Amino acid sequence: MKRTLSALAKNQPGVLAELASEFGKSGANILSLAAGETENPEVSRIVLRIEGDDTAIDAAERYLDGLDAIIQIDDLSRKDFVDRELVMVKVAMSPGNTSQLMQIFEVFRANVIGMGQESITVELSGDQERIDGLIQMLVPYGIKSMCRSGMIALKRGDE
Amino acid sequence: MKRTLSALAKNQPGVLAELASEFGKSGANILSLAAGETENPEVSRIVLRIEGDDTAIDAAERYLDGLDAIIQIDDLSRKDFVDRELVMVKVAMSPGNTSQLMQIFEVFRANVIGMGQESITVELSGDQERIDGLIQMLVPYGIKSMCRSGMIALKRGDE
Repeated sequence: MKRTLSALAKNQPGVLAELASEFGKSGANILSLAAGETENPEVSRIVLRIEGDDTAIDAAERYLDGLDAIIQIDDLSRKDFVDRELVMVKVAMSPGNTSQLMQIFEVFRANVIGMGQESITVELSGDQERIDGLIQMLVPYGIKSMCRSGMIALKRGDE
Repeated sequence: MKRTLSALAKNQPGVLAELASEFGKSGANILSLAAGETENPEVSRIVLRIEGDDTAIDAAERYLDGLDAIIQIDDLSRKDFVDRELVMVKVAMSPGNTSQLMQIFEVFRANVIGMGQESITVELSGDQERIDGLIQMLVPYGIKSMCRSGMIALKRGDE
């Protein structure tokens, strides 16, 4: 099953390696990982999308929760959260398809952030459905390169 | 020095752990890491912001470049690239400061994605300067929680 985990970790060397390695040992596949700063400069938030055996993932989660460097680890699959992802896509462009591409960007409200002789680069942030939707629309034109941030997430409400 | 590395890696278990551990061994501090899918389902792109001794980072980069699972590794500090980051911020809100907050969101073109009794959640994508600028403006109001994706980047131009 695909699951989303969010961990708050102390900014210590090796935390990210230990986390990735622990889930690797559980046989799970890390689909995406986003690690960035939080409101506290000594703490990072790591959001993982992971796919694998539930019991093995649960065990890895419990092990990590016991580490001194891991402050908190939440399974967002079981909680109410709002998720977003950022993607940048460089798609092949020719005089014949420019207006079609522009229409797609408008529908998805994707921002053009770069233009070359034969390509155009856009960014879009949204939930995974929206990101996947844009990518699917652009595939027939030829995606030259693409970079996804991995999912980030925050709990809904005031907490 | 702070540097940005972008790696294309085969989707194999353990790649992320090896990468994080190799930079850990070099004594460098991983400031952010974003690992996500690319246009090729068998390949992931990993973008790292890293700070540490340049010689040690160079050595780690060369070692990783030699691994079968690493297809390519680029040092973006030396290339022309466009970078973006995504942030979600939940900030404390009261009837007295709502309109001030809304003005800040408008200036930064941040999107409101959630609202509670005592908080409001926004998302913003942009370069690091813009993200840091928004955060700095929101700190005095009280940031309740925050999640950053880490930097993602693509080369400029058609390549």
